[in-house]
Amino acid sequence: MKLVNIKLSKDENSVIIIDQTALPNEIKYLELFNATQCFEAIFKLKVRGAPAIGIFAGYACYVLARSMKLSPYNDFKLKFLELTSFLNSSRPTAVNLSWAIARMLAVVDHSNENNVIEKLRNEAFLINNEDKLMCKAISEAGLSLIKDNDGILTHCNAGPLATSEYGTALGPILLAQERGLNVKVFADETRPLLQGARLTAFELNSAGVDVTLICDNMASIVMKSGKINACFVGADRIASNGDTANKIGTSGVAILAKYYKIPVYVFAPSSTVDFTCKSGADIEIELRDGNEIAELYYTKRMAPIGVKTYNPAFDVTDHSLIAGIVTEKGVLRPPFSESLKALK
Amino acid sequence: MKLVNIKLSKDENSVIIIDQTALPNEIKYLELFNATQCFEAIFKLKVRGAPAIGIFAGYACYVLARSMKLSPYNDFKLKFLELTSFLNSSRPTAVNLSWAIARMLAVVDHSNENNVIEKLRNEAFLINNEDKLMCKAISEAGLSLIKDNDGILTHCNAGPLATSEYGTALGPILLAQERGLNVKVFADETRPLLQGARLTAFELNSAGVDVTLICDNMASIVMKSGKINACFVGADRIASNGDTANKIGTSGVAILAKYYKIPVYVFAPSSTVDFTCKSGADIEIELRDGNEIAELYYTKRMAPIGVKTYNPAFDVTDHSLIAGIVTEKGVLRPPFSESLKALK
Repeated sequence: MKLVNIKLSKDENSVIIIDQTALPNEIKYLELFNATQCFEAIFKLKVRGAPAIGIFAGYACYVLARSMKLSPYNDFKLKFLELTSFLNSSRPTAVNLSWAIARMLAVVDHSNENNVIEKLRNEAFLINNEDKLMCKAISEAGLSLIKDNDGILTHCNAGPLATSEYGTALGPILLAQERGLNVKVFADETRPLLQGARLTAFELNSAGVDVTLICDNMASIVMKSGKINACFVGADRIASNGDTANKIGTSGVAILAKYYKIPVYVFAPSSTVDFTCKSGADIEIELRDGNEIAELYYTKRMAPIGVKTYNPAFDVTDHSLIAGIVTEKGVLRPPFSESLKALK
Repeated sequence: MKLVNIKLSKDENSVIIIDQTALPNEIKYLELFNATQCFEAIFKLKVRGAPAIGIFAGYACYVLARSMKLSPYNDFKLKFLELTSFLNSSRPTAVNLSWAIARMLAVVDHSNENNVIEKLRNEAFLINNEDKLMCKAISEAGLSLIKDNDGILTHCNAGPLATSEYGTALGPILLAQERGLNVKVFADETRPLLQGARLTAFELNSAGVDVTLICDNMASIVMKSGKINACFVGADRIASNGDTANKIGTSGVAILAKYYKIPVYVFAPSSTVDFTCKSGADIEIELRDGNEIAELYYTKRMAPIGVKTYNPAFDVTDHSLIAGIVTEKGVLRPPFSESLKALK
């Protein structure tokens, strides 16, 4: 099953999206006709993922323009600016939102009442197609990193729902699946917002990929088991030395992978590299509301029905990682094969 | 506020416990008079933690004996065996449960109707006091590992609720607090069952310790920030080479700590060392129901009101941990300071 997360309706009077807040329990399509509905779709995270928001904004601008009076053209321009400013305020930190709206505004600036609708339509499809090509190119490049029967661990969500057709980190996996390769994916649930459980597990499951959902703290035991050949993650920002900002927990995955000698690959459009950033130390980390941890915002089932899970209750910490074992008899130091004998 | 999780009622006709399933939202005391109530308390995890179950079983056996007819003594013995077998079946894998019941049965075997109640009472208090002394000794030994103003990261729950007064891994922290040391604790929430959020954060918060709740995948960024001087964890089983089985995620914490050059200390009674176990490879890992991951069993607030949280949305992965960066232009390899330039 291939899902299209954002598209125009047949009569092009509305944008149709998959409501991401209803996933994975329900595949619910929403049809959005006006600015208020489009604003709410972004504001309430019904559409999310930086590229996806950009694509959505393009189609939304086109649909809004179609519903408007085009002449006098200056009045149209003013009203269009007003509506898109409103749309833009739905998520101030979403760079792709303002970027896509700016592209649509530029089109309006360079058009007239006779050609503006067609030109806006072209630009909206162009934004979408550019992203598709980008994701496809990333996916093709990433495919070279996958061998048949590989196990891949991924964190958070960098799939089609966040972008277009293929996604970034999930792209090579979906492509591998299409080309008949057998890939086993382990998806970190990714606390606190559970994008891995709700979206990645859902997307891979829908595409027929063999996916197993784990809690974030199970990555170590899965890597240790020998089931993982590579870790595939997305990126929000890459510094010029390669330090990469991504969903919380990604650095932990990378440290574990290093310990287990598993390669970590980062997938992103080249525009993600911020050359003004010398290293990760220059990247400011967003701190979010603590209630996301203390209260689960998502009270329904957190993963798609039928998704595989792996739920080990314990794991084993290698003695080489332990500085001391403290019993009622005191602190024992390595080498433990010797020092533990005191407890016999 | 010091909480006593298990105690006898004043008239000694019942055992009073804190219902751990109601924590952290409510401190609810349950008074248990008969075998059915005691069975249910263990079965439904209202009392949990290996040592705590042992302590509870001791008091429960004493209370049950008090409610019984003591003569003829052989009839009493038979009935006592029947009731304790029933109690023992409440959680077949809990070693401390059968261990404590065996101790109480031995007392019955070596007593008569005139002294059995007093001897059972002594044995129950002895089990509890032995655990208190054990925890205190572990805590005192562990205190030597804490300096004033230290930051300590802990995983899962090895505190008073799981044992008696002090606990194991949390013992030195509680002791440090009592002695006026300033300790800042970061508690992993510990998915899937959230013992860190529900119990550790609750216990430390109640004791007035400065505790901050984080999701498991935030341990890396917290360690990187320089806020952590040591990791304190419990143990379910320690192999003779020091390999340690503990709650899922502990090995990940230890690998992260090694990377950040932070010492990891394991706290446990010496009886936890299994000398029949050569290494961790000999330890079988319990696999649990996947629905613990896919559906949150705990639908209420997951952490005590007022507990501090730290909720970074992203973290930075050092370039040294990344094998390749994949953009639409292909796979870039280290050194990235060089290879990324191709994207300019």
